[in-house]
Amino acid sequence: MTADPLAGWLKVVGLGPGTEDWLTPEARRDLAEATDLVGYFPYVDRVPPGPQVRHASDNRVELDRARHALQLAAEGRRVAVVSGGDPGVFAMAAAVFEALDDPAAPAAWHRVPLSVDPGISAMQAAAARAGAPLGHDFCAISLSDNLKPWEVVLRRLRLAAEADFVIALYNPISRARPWQLGAAFDALRDLRSTETPVILAQAVGRPDEALTVTTLGAVDAAQADMRTCVIIGASHTRLVPREGAQPWVYTPRSYGVRG
Amino acid sequence: MTADPLAGWLKVVGLGPGTEDWLTPEARRDLAEATDLVGYFPYVDRVPPGPQVRHASDNRVELDRARHALQLAAEGRRVAVVSGGDPGVFAMAAAVFEALDDPAAPAAWHRVPLSVDPGISAMQAAAARAGAPLGHDFCAISLSDNLKPWEVVLRRLRLAAEADFVIALYNPISRARPWQLGAAFDALRDLRSTETPVILAQAVGRPDEALTVTTLGAVDAAQADMRTCVIIGASHTRLVPREGAQPWVYTPRSYGVRG
Repeated sequence: MTADPLAGWLKVVGLGPGTEDWLTPEARRDLAEATDLVGYFPYVDRVPPGPQVRHASDNRVELDRARHALQLAAEGRRVAVVSGGDPGVFAMAAAVFEALDDPAAPAAWHRVPLSVDPGISAMQAAAARAGAPLGHDFCAISLSDNLKPWEVVLRRLRLAAEADFVIALYNPISRARPWQLGAAFDALRDLRSTETPVILAQAVGRPDEALTVTTLGAVDAAQADMRTCVIIGASHTRLVPREGAQPWVYTPRSYGVRG
Repeated sequence: MTADPLAGWLKVVGLGPGTEDWLTPEARRDLAEATDLVGYFPYVDRVPPGPQVRHASDNRVELDRARHALQLAAEGRRVAVVSGGDPGVFAMAAAVFEALDDPAAPAAWHRVPLSVDPGISAMQAAAARAGAPLGHDFCAISLSDNLKPWEVVLRRLRLAAEADFVIALYNPISRARPWQLGAAFDALRDLRSTETPVILAQAVGRPDEALTVTTLGAVDAAQADMRTCVIIGASHTRLVPREGAQPWVYTPRSYGVRG
């Protein structure tokens, strides 16, 4: 198949956390206009059937995937690189720019029209289901130590606790990283009250979504899996009882002053 | 007009950062089904004309607005509380739960079916336009010292710099808070390289959107306004030249290890 190299583009498209209810009109349009879909296979599988060529790959090959997508676009294909959640948050957008930033990147890659479609990220979906835990200053930390030394993760957790940020944890646990989440909870237990609310939001936006509200004292890392987003409250994060469900969790907008 | 109190609901609806391209299907449906829209007037004005009763109010009355919305819903109205961006991030969702958490809140408010529709937040839209600055651990800090003492803001900025988070600043500047952003830049200049990339993303998703990529050494607070989201890079945030535009800004996924 031949294509006009000048007609190609690459869009990094955020699919949101699962349900089409959270897929933006921009993302839907770009997926429909793409000739090629590139991504981790569960995300590619989420795009409704269509004429697009599907290049699904395994996890942990983000950079190869990004290079492949840039090359296809440079050859004139309209390429959607798909990511769950927001591609800009611990996801494929950074990998595409890393591939482009390689001194060995062909000049043609730099001529590819490139854009990013933001999506609802996992922590926002988790927060919406739980109430409003991200209503005040917060941070997002990936627990994956594939990409940074574990000491950096620990140091960030300690400083985040000292700053009294609400903390959202991405990539909390996997078969290859079984102990990190427990170690993170242990580190935070030394610095925050055991009564601190903790949210475990599993597969939000999917048919099997589940929400657990517990405390830093009681939480067990075994309650989380790969599809869990963990949110740990700040010192002023509060609960509101809700009939027939987990309590609401919210973090007031004001801090240390009368609102 | 009479309404069945049991038919009421309250949904806190995120409109995203401006363009309908980023309005989720869930938000669109909930706005259409609402009988009443409650919110800060520029957000209420963004909802396309329809039969809904519009309760638009000025800024800084979030808690009154939340109480009014809960009361309307308790009386049987279907109320959409509208927020720009994500209502869970420095916005109306926390105010609604604060109002509900008041010991003086009528029991009827607690019976109102309540939910939150997440939206694309300003920092995500800003990040998408700039590249992928939020590709690694980051934090979000509101610079508004209406709701917390300025010393808390400064302390968090310093700890965030020490943790080497990418930093997104919300509410950077206003007529009533003219000096805080400059003071924040000054504090960070003591802790981060003057070459650190800084993104000023103004009115993203609106017809007059503008993106500026500069450095911590060169940035001037006067370049920002109320509608600006400011993102300050981490030590490993990088630039990629882009023809005919500001350079791309991205933060690699890996940190301190070979990726």
